[in-house]
Amino acid sequence: MSRSRVLSAVPAKNPGPPGSCIFCDIIARRAKGYILYEDEEAVAFLDLFPFTRGHLLVVPRHHVDRLTDFAEREYSAYLRAIANVCRRVDRLSKHYNVAANQGSLAGQIVFHLHFHVIPRYGEDNPFRTTPRERLREEDALALVEVLSRP
Amino acid sequence: MSRSRVLSAVPAKNPGPPGSCIFCDIIARRAKGYILYEDEEAVAFLDLFPFTRGHLLVVPRHHVDRLTDFAEREYSAYLRAIANVCRRVDRLSKHYNVAANQGSLAGQIVFHLHFHVIPRYGEDNPFRTTPRERLREEDALALVEVLSRP
Repeated sequence: MSRSRVLSAVPAKNPGPPGSCIFCDIIARRAKGYILYEDEEAVAFLDLFPFTRGHLLVVPRHHVDRLTDFAEREYSAYLRAIANVCRRVDRLSKHYNVAANQGSLAGQIVFHLHFHVIPRYGEDNPFRTTPRERLREEDALALVEVLSRP
Repeated sequence: MSRSRVLSAVPAKNPGPPGSCIFCDIIARRAKGYILYEDEEAVAFLDLFPFTRGHLLVVPRHHVDRLTDFAEREYSAYLRAIANVCRRVDRLSKHYNVAANQGSLAGQIVFHLHFHVIPRYGEDNPFRTTPRERLREEDALALVEVLSRP
């Protein structure tokens, strides 16, 4: 049994009912997500509408809307998970943006705290407001292969 | 003696020689910075070329280039400092981006780890690549007044 399967028994914490939060549903395997990392406190999966190749999200299992809602004892594990994921993103590029959007006017769409990690490869500013292309299954699986190795 | 003055005796940790890192120089009061928050492990000051009003940086005292260079024991204090600063930024707007640029292709200019906190007020995408206006002294002092209150 893989570590991933063991950990999948650790559900989201403090979730609403199924369907109320897409990230809680992905964490609980009730919704499809391209998961590439998980530990006891956090899960990372690919963004379905990536700004760049490998764009992913690092999400605490604990359902909170904002960083300021988080209990202080949770900071260490969450930032460790983000750093662990960044070490894997180094396989794609040593250059990346690590960003949380807090509040709708800052671009937050899912109200479950998450940091984006967005690899950069020398393209022009990728943070366009025009529609982005949906991640293709074959690209997603190739990325999960690269990023899920410990 | 204010808490700020007491803490100013806590210098940057692991800095290079004076002049080698502008953030270490600001932390050590060798260079001017509009400091609005500090604790034993981190310091926050205004960005001199803000994307929006109140754009600031949260910087660990420990001089490291990247999140992945940070010792695990430092994660908790750093994320706590970021959250503390976010609570103050709530006085300007509940909406903000919290972002670290890692690597030159991701826009990192100063190679001392820092998270930007960028308040948003409903403007269009402010992340333009055109030159930004330098923060004016009177605006900086007004912002420090608002944001330095505990």
